[in-house]
Amino acid sequence: MRIRYFDNAASSWPKPAQVAEAMKQCVDEYGANPGRGSHSMAVKASRILFETRKNISKLLHVKNPNDISFALNTTGALNLAIQGFLREGDHVICSNVEHNSVRRPLEYLRRSRGVSVSYTPSDSQGNIRIDDITSLITAKTKMIVCSHSSNLLGTVLPIEEIAELCHRHGIKLLVDAAQTAGTLPLDIAASGIHMLAFPGHKGLLGPQGTGGLYIAPDIDLEPLLYGGTGSQSEEIEQPTVRPDRYEAGTQNTAGIAGLNEGVKFVLQETVEKIHHKEWGLTQRLMEGLLGIDGVAILGPDLGQNRTGIVSFNLAQADSSEISFILDQSYQIAVRAGYHCSPLAHECAGTLGVGAVRASIGYFTTESEVDELIAAVKEISQHYAH
Amino acid sequence: MRIRYFDNAASSWPKPAQVAEAMKQCVDEYGANPGRGSHSMAVKASRILFETRKNISKLLHVKNPNDISFALNTTGALNLAIQGFLREGDHVICSNVEHNSVRRPLEYLRRSRGVSVSYTPSDSQGNIRIDDITSLITAKTKMIVCSHSSNLLGTVLPIEEIAELCHRHGIKLLVDAAQTAGTLPLDIAASGIHMLAFPGHKGLLGPQGTGGLYIAPDIDLEPLLYGGTGSQSEEIEQPTVRPDRYEAGTQNTAGIAGLNEGVKFVLQETVEKIHHKEWGLTQRLMEGLLGIDGVAILGPDLGQNRTGIVSFNLAQADSSEISFILDQSYQIAVRAGYHCSPLAHECAGTLGVGAVRASIGYFTTESEVDELIAAVKEISQHYAH
Repeated sequence: MRIRYFDNAASSWPKPAQVAEAMKQCVDEYGANPGRGSHSMAVKASRILFETRKNISKLLHVKNPNDISFALNTTGALNLAIQGFLREGDHVICSNVEHNSVRRPLEYLRRSRGVSVSYTPSDSQGNIRIDDITSLITAKTKMIVCSHSSNLLGTVLPIEEIAELCHRHGIKLLVDAAQTAGTLPLDIAASGIHMLAFPGHKGLLGPQGTGGLYIAPDIDLEPLLYGGTGSQSEEIEQPTVRPDRYEAGTQNTAGIAGLNEGVKFVLQETVEKIHHKEWGLTQRLMEGLLGIDGVAILGPDLGQNRTGIVSFNLAQADSSEISFILDQSYQIAVRAGYHCSPLAHECAGTLGVGAVRASIGYFTTESEVDELIAAVKEISQHYAH
Repeated sequence: MRIRYFDNAASSWPKPAQVAEAMKQCVDEYGANPGRGSHSMAVKASRILFETRKNISKLLHVKNPNDISFALNTTGALNLAIQGFLREGDHVICSNVEHNSVRRPLEYLRRSRGVSVSYTPSDSQGNIRIDDITSLITAKTKMIVCSHSSNLLGTVLPIEEIAELCHRHGIKLLVDAAQTAGTLPLDIAASGIHMLAFPGHKGLLGPQGTGGLYIAPDIDLEPLLYGGTGSQSEEIEQPTVRPDRYEAGTQNTAGIAGLNEGVKFVLQETVEKIHHKEWGLTQRLMEGLLGIDGVAILGPDLGQNRTGIVSFNLAQADSSEISFILDQSYQIAVRAGYHCSPLAHECAGTLGVGAVRASIGYFTTESEVDELIAAVKEISQHYAH
């Protein structure tokens, strides 16, 4: 049975065929431990890690591939950045649409380390104003954390301007690129972003279990994991050399080999082309949904910049119910509920009800979009009575 | 070119064919995000995580599969256990053969949290005596951390007896099963081990990027990662329900699907059969090496209990050189150096020189063992002159 997959914001699917092929090849043909041994299989495993680091650097405009450390997921990368950077008494500002992977570590540090946290105000579409951020800055502000795009609203936040603001005030900027790496242009070198967390399994089209953190060369984080790296084994402390400092233990080599193929695919297609295609499909979906009685779409208006995320509610219907009907009766996969983003729901005024989220990917087709629209239209007729 | 792979202690290879197959199938056919959405693909992804948890529980004799949390690697699991359990002023005892993945987090907590750390003495083969541990216990001792087996010496430590000691003194035991999960019988329920960290990519025959931690139901750890879990999204704090509490962010679903196949293979063959085969090959290798002039083997004597690890030195030769020659001239993969275990090298008196480590796996053959012996013999003749 063919599934129309609209859950790309949770994990992109399908992947380019070479992703799973590369993973299989890695496990079957050179499944040794990278960095733990100098025999040829271990060297080949090390090489694939480096090649992937290099390709990601090319995509994100990072000068030194060793400034990218791999992690299990974006959450791991964000926790390393947040827990590794903020100290007792520091102040941090974050946007009002942050995912729980930013909010929860910040609130943990508030409880455990006396870090103070300010959330910027935003409008109901999730837009934040630079002035509002500026007015929150104090002498103790050490970091601003900001999603490049809300995973609920699709709103694109002005991270280049925020980076400028940070540079003017000597504050470090951490960007959560969970929804944009591979689908919106990102230039770390030009924008001067200090840290950026990214997933491997969304816009970069790699498998789950991959992701990473870019860390500017002048930032030294306290590692999150202490352990072996295959280097400087006789030292009692974690090595200072990158990426080893932030990559204790054996990495997800097969997953990273798959990620490499995803990144190569994105580089070949270009982020610009991918964004253009996704934006067109997103507008088509919005137009169709807006033509249905009772549908309310969250986030930016039609024609405005957004990622491939279209969250909506249908009259007073429960989002889980809509999602269930779409799955069972139409083989359409969307996600319902809170999407780990209660803050963004607060902005949108949907904290009590949640939302149905349909998220576009590079492999989504126009006819799939039309099928989703038609399905929601049919369902809406049921709810009108 | 056929490689004779003797680096199973770093990562087992080859894997059963179904491991990579299952990973490919996961990525290609149901690559949705487990626990994030109730559509059929996400449900299938969730199910594979649960099935793997259940099979690991069966293998390790864990009652409730939700007491197992997945991690990127054993290091991640050990850091969660160590950093999540120990508090300011606590005292911890660990063995003298611990890997850096235990030693470094403990030393980090000594520096950052005022935790005091005692290392048990051991003999040159890495054996420790219960009396020596007992004499280190104070009123502040909260935890004992112990490898089930040294990754350098192959020595098997008496964790059942240490577990008894812990229960008598109200201390928690954390076992590092990096070298034994899947290759030495482990019964968590019967032994009363409180926490146990395991890799997915060694004895369990799964891919890299997998592993986990068993946590007894009465232990509550401070999570290492804070973030989204797909559950209780509206809460500001990490959910208390397991395994969500310790599994923030998207898991390595494809890797875990592969691990499931590895674990099923081990369950079918049985750990006892695997250990028996590996022990026989290990003895064969030791016998052969001991017949070569100038070879000194680290760890337990011939005939004594050990895992499939045979570390040795050849006269005054540099271990990296031997390893290089084995790789380049004989296509034999071993590992040289410190193996992230300077403590164990201290025991063995090899801290200055390192060692060549040949490690047996379930797929190692007698003829491969004989080829390794013959190669070392040839090389030794070169060094005799």
